[in-house]
Amino acid sequence: MMKRAIIYISDSTGITAETVGHSLLTQFPGLEFEPVTLRFVDSELKAREAAELINFAAEKSGQKPIVFSTLVEPEIRRIVMHSQGLFMDFMQQFLQPLADEFELPVRPSVGHTHGQEQQYENRMTAVNFALESDDGLRTQQYDRADIILTGVSRSGKTPTCVYLALHYGIFAANYPLVEEDLENMHLPEHLKKYRQKLFGLSISADRLHRIRSERRPDSEYASLRQCQYEVRQVEALFRQCQISFLDVTTMSVEEISTHIMTQARLGHNGTTFKKP
Amino acid sequence: MMKRAIIYISDSTGITAETVGHSLLTQFPGLEFEPVTLRFVDSELKAREAAELINFAAEKSGQKPIVFSTLVEPEIRRIVMHSQGLFMDFMQQFLQPLADEFELPVRPSVGHTHGQEQQYENRMTAVNFALESDDGLRTQQYDRADIILTGVSRSGKTPTCVYLALHYGIFAANYPLVEEDLENMHLPEHLKKYRQKLFGLSISADRLHRIRSERRPDSEYASLRQCQYEVRQVEALFRQCQISFLDVTTMSVEEISTHIMTQARLGHNGTTFKKP
Repeated sequence: MMKRAIIYISDSTGITAETVGHSLLTQFPGLEFEPVTLRFVDSELKAREAAELINFAAEKSGQKPIVFSTLVEPEIRRIVMHSQGLFMDFMQQFLQPLADEFELPVRPSVGHTHGQEQQYENRMTAVNFALESDDGLRTQQYDRADIILTGVSRSGKTPTCVYLALHYGIFAANYPLVEEDLENMHLPEHLKKYRQKLFGLSISADRLHRIRSERRPDSEYASLRQCQYEVRQVEALFRQCQISFLDVTTMSVEEISTHIMTQARLGHNGTTFKKP
Repeated sequence: MMKRAIIYISDSTGITAETVGHSLLTQFPGLEFEPVTLRFVDSELKAREAAELINFAAEKSGQKPIVFSTLVEPEIRRIVMHSQGLFMDFMQQFLQPLADEFELPVRPSVGHTHGQEQQYENRMTAVNFALESDDGLRTQQYDRADIILTGVSRSGKTPTCVYLALHYGIFAANYPLVEEDLENMHLPEHLKKYRQKLFGLSISADRLHRIRSERRPDSEYASLRQCQYEVRQVEALFRQCQISFLDVTTMSVEEISTHIMTQARLGHNGTTFKKP
């Protein structure tokens, strides 16, 4: 059986089409897909090229390609819709009910992921902050941090900080706990006065062993014994210091980030509408 | 007029609901919104709390909250749907046509953004690569780079590298061009043998001036004159060395990243199905 062709198509970045299409496809585990993203399809010429590509994929595979679309221009949509794909239209289906509710006309305009200027600047500043405060660097700027992730080496702190910054403008620093901290079972000096901002990441020793082995195969650092020791100690330390922590063994960086936001009440978490 | 309440609701991270909801709302510029994300709504108790919050927002504002949902469990969906919001259902609407096409039953399962294990590991490795190769560091690992971004200081290289890594597993390094390079109009030694991997970012002098002024107000570095000089020189250098470049002045990091992928033919760009 050939893999099913998946076409994400957009007049802009294609990120929305990819995100929601991917979510839908995870509901069908076991199937195999061949994804293609057609971005910036913003002219009739490009729309015809896209339609040709969809038809070509259909003929080659003998199966309807699945087309996830966020196209908004009517003429461009029409051209792509008339190809041999199964057309899933994320914009049109929802724009009309929204327009009705807002009592506004639907005036298609090519989307921008940019959003508000100030919010965007803040995200970029947060990315710089995350990089500058990676791996225990620049603890002197912890006053500006919204959150400080801590845990053993390779428990996922860095990607999580970067994700929180890039997507939510959260100022996230990270500080690695090293053997000395774990032996003495006390928090490093730099962290003591920021206990309220600390959040721990833990991970199974098996998984940590596998991750570290990729980086430094056959080292003491990557050995299962060492990983077991560090994980046991770090969790005991988190409990002793009453630091909230999360076991990230089976989580993606998206899941880790959003769990942290929920638990640490960062970002938009419904507080605005909470009854007093 | 009160801001309209927007509720993103999900049994998982909420990222899909946020992404597609945000795309739809950008079609209605001029309206103001008060967004809230309710994540990990995976029990009937949490569903009832969510419905209460939606009803509370409706009463407080006298307007229907807009509910963008990726909930999949029928009973949880039912509870939330019966609140006083305008319920926009991203999953249900598309799952049935997909299931019909795949000739499979719809078996709701709570979504994971994780995707395939190997692909995920690759993204995390790419994040480490981006951080290690930020700002001209570790040029010795440029052999492993898929792309090397270059340009003047503060032209957006770092967030773009991080985005490409985190979302697409692209190994992206970045190297800043400094005054000396711009005066002499030649590429730094480290870059010469990687010309095929280079991609330039440019930006308007005005915008660069504003960005640099936030960081170092009233410095020579941030002065409009200096920015004008650097931008003029860097674009001349890109042209002289035949390096593709992009003017990122009005672009978000998502737009910059996807434009680069399109131009440099990185990631899934339709090549699989291109006729020979």
